[in-house]
Amino acid sequence: MSDRIFNFSAGPAVLPEPVLRQAQKDLWDVAGSGIGVAEHSHRGKVFDRIFAETEKAARELAGIPDGYKLLFLQGGATLQFSMVPMCLLPKGRTADYLNTGVWSQKAIAEAKKVGDIHVAASSEGTNFDGIPEASAIRYSADPAYVHFTSNNTIYGTQWAAEPPAPSGAPLVCDASSDIFSRPIDVSKYGLIYAGAQKNLGPSGVTFVIIREDLADLGPKDLPILLQYRTHVKDGSMHNTPNTFGIYLMGEVFKWIKAEGGLAGIEERNRRKAKLLYDAIDASKVFKGRALPGSRSMMNVCFLSGNDDLDARFVSEAAKRGLDGLKGHRSAGGIRASIYNAMPEAGVQALVDFVHEFEKTVD
Amino acid sequence: MSDRIFNFSAGPAVLPEPVLRQAQKDLWDVAGSGIGVAEHSHRGKVFDRIFAETEKAARELAGIPDGYKLLFLQGGATLQFSMVPMCLLPKGRTADYLNTGVWSQKAIAEAKKVGDIHVAASSEGTNFDGIPEASAIRYSADPAYVHFTSNNTIYGTQWAAEPPAPSGAPLVCDASSDIFSRPIDVSKYGLIYAGAQKNLGPSGVTFVIIREDLADLGPKDLPILLQYRTHVKDGSMHNTPNTFGIYLMGEVFKWIKAEGGLAGIEERNRRKAKLLYDAIDASKVFKGRALPGSRSMMNVCFLSGNDDLDARFVSEAAKRGLDGLKGHRSAGGIRASIYNAMPEAGVQALVDFVHEFEKTVD
Repeated sequence: MSDRIFNFSAGPAVLPEPVLRQAQKDLWDVAGSGIGVAEHSHRGKVFDRIFAETEKAARELAGIPDGYKLLFLQGGATLQFSMVPMCLLPKGRTADYLNTGVWSQKAIAEAKKVGDIHVAASSEGTNFDGIPEASAIRYSADPAYVHFTSNNTIYGTQWAAEPPAPSGAPLVCDASSDIFSRPIDVSKYGLIYAGAQKNLGPSGVTFVIIREDLADLGPKDLPILLQYRTHVKDGSMHNTPNTFGIYLMGEVFKWIKAEGGLAGIEERNRRKAKLLYDAIDASKVFKGRALPGSRSMMNVCFLSGNDDLDARFVSEAAKRGLDGLKGHRSAGGIRASIYNAMPEAGVQALVDFVHEFEKTVD
Repeated sequence: MSDRIFNFSAGPAVLPEPVLRQAQKDLWDVAGSGIGVAEHSHRGKVFDRIFAETEKAARELAGIPDGYKLLFLQGGATLQFSMVPMCLLPKGRTADYLNTGVWSQKAIAEAKKVGDIHVAASSEGTNFDGIPEASAIRYSADPAYVHFTSNNTIYGTQWAAEPPAPSGAPLVCDASSDIFSRPIDVSKYGLIYAGAQKNLGPSGVTFVIIREDLADLGPKDLPILLQYRTHVKDGSMHNTPNTFGIYLMGEVFKWIKAEGGLAGIEERNRRKAKLLYDAIDASKVFKGRALPGSRSMMNVCFLSGNDDLDARFVSEAAKRGLDGLKGHRSAGGIRASIYNAMPEAGVQALVDFVHEFEKTVD
């Protein structure tokens, strides 16, 4: 029936098969309109409905309170690295960043172009093997906001819960690689942003959840597309958005709901991660990269300590239909990205192959 | 066989049916990889090949010289309205803009946030009914560049040829709504940008052709994604691009080639436009909006002079499977967007309906 293999890519990543089947139909003719979903005007009734349903589904899934706006932008998390400080860091203030890897570092580098940045905690000294303890965080006196990266794809680490931010400092989160993988209390955040291409849809849409009072911050002479207020005012349609991407996100949201919502998805994600970490912990060949308390449910990074052996594992796994397991070039080793849409059968197949592979190693 | 109707939307717009058929297959499993095209890593071999083929096809179609780079970005033409002056307009210099409609005005508004702008010609005084004569253009002494909008979707006007720019001033063009609708001599330009969603593919990709020497201009402390040099250096993959959009553009390029390339497409576009303009010119009910010498081959705007009658035309046309004919809200009337992928049969069906409709009008 399915000629598809298991895709452990870190992103763009596997999408749910029912979503792909629906998209195949809708590319040709959506909702009986006689026009494909990628061909509808973003200002027409058919896309209006798709957009409204997508937004509503996201709100329902994550229980997003009324005081927050949802935006569907372009430019990925990387453009948010710039937009966040350009809009939220006034002259003379300091923004605090928690440095847990390459993506945090890139966010910091862009923010430093805008204003004064204080790194309140960092796991760089131990090669980003873990998430800083709350007790190790040293905030500045009155940060304009606190920024963190909830999941670190390259090292396979993840914040188990939000870091505690000083009173009055909005929490800003790059949630690109774990958004909607578990329930989230949006009321704890000022702004959440995420590239869609891991848990939400295809690449080319940036999903932003912003507290209304923050959306009007920032100089009005910034480029019009770099002001959150533009997108709030125009409902993400100041210019033509990525309509197909937004449509596909809506289909993914429907699928998450059918899978039990964020609570159901989390339960499955925990089972998947446990299955794989248990196999690694029991292995005589492989060990996990991240500190146990910091382990990611999304990106499981492990290694043998022998680059050639890791490479053989990746190559032989690919021959068995387990694709995309090579670790990031800056970390090496093996990385299994097991986002929402990776079925449990895929993780089981990988665990089976770990066992099989071990038998071939002296 | 086809349950599709004729889609005259100004964008996102109709896509070629063979492209949609191929995309339906490739969403599930592309190139026998067992992974759908939207699910492949942008750094993997399968997408590498798709990207390289897409770029090569664009180069071949338009005969783009070696000294030009092709970029596949995000943010639409609107982000280019900002990027162009941020990178190409040094402090103390002036950039010249030709104002032929709302999109030119938006480009001018963003550029004014950056530096000194001179409007070298404008058709605003006559409600943008035409393209300025070359003799009416008054350039500043030494413009950093000259910017124009090659086709104006709202008023249905189009530059028949590039405006003459002063020696040494690179010509910058927003070609969103007529790129690849006819042959183009890229060597006359410094930079061409276009949202993909009219002639090239789905929304969410901005196609940029930039002369290499211009790509390194602009302050290095700009947001990293707003520097052309970033995208040239990283081959449009500094961060995750819109992979599905780029793939679909590649398929559209193959289709254009099969249709006879840009010369073949232009010939067909001329036939389509002539068919419709001839019907309007012969009509006792409708008249064309644009001055005859400025008429667009892409967006044919016409009106009866009676808003109710225009609305009835649009509404009755939709019932016959001729969709998206309502004029832009700022111009009113009727607009038929007949981009590359609109078949001649669609234009013929519209012309037939014009004739039929006229008989119902006293």
